[in-house]
Amino acid sequence: MDEIFDALKATPNVSKLIMENDRVRVIDARFKPGVKAAMHSHPDHVLYIFNDGKMKITPSNGKPQTMDLKTGQVIWMDATSHEAENLGKTDVHMLVVELKE
Amino acid sequence: MDEIFDALKATPNVSKLIMENDRVRVIDARFKPGVKAAMHSHPDHVLYIFNDGKMKITPSNGKPQTMDLKTGQVIWMDATSHEAENLGKTDVHMLVVELKE
Repeated sequence: MDEIFDALKATPNVSKLIMENDRVRVIDARFKPGVKAAMHSHPDHVLYIFNDGKMKITPSNGKPQTMDLKTGQVIWMDATSHEAENLGKTDVHMLVVELKE
Repeated sequence: MDEIFDALKATPNVSKLIMENDRVRVIDARFKPGVKAAMHSHPDHVLYIFNDGKMKITPSNGKPQTMDLKTGQVIWMDATSHEAENLGKTDVHMLVVELKE
């Protein structure tokens, strides 16, 4: 992964490292309404969604898409590079479990 | 893993499957006070703790240990077989992200 796009380094405004070892990296991500995360990359990862919300995700190689997030939802995402923006009126809070393999 | 000890099959009283693919299995686990989960196995996994609580964990090959759980805590656990019991007065709620590799 290009280090400049590492999620923690590229999006310090929304990302906080909680745990890391040789298998996983776990990030707490919080977006207040209107907040954007700059272009960043993740390996394959699991998202846990803490509360309802609405995000705009813009992949580096594709068109923007809107995601309606639901409390308690778990989402699998293949490795990707994208921008992210909180389009809703509520805070978006998610747990990101990145798989290193 | 011996199928009889599979966490979902061995502990249906506390475990609910949320998501599964070829990389991960994600389980929502809830223990009311006093509830026990029978002997079961996990591969390497990440735990996310939703609220403060107290668990007794009894490994298949070791002595019981008490874990004080904190809201928002993330715990890495190597593959293990154990029993678990909620020793506290609050519900224990955790997300279990099992890694298949």
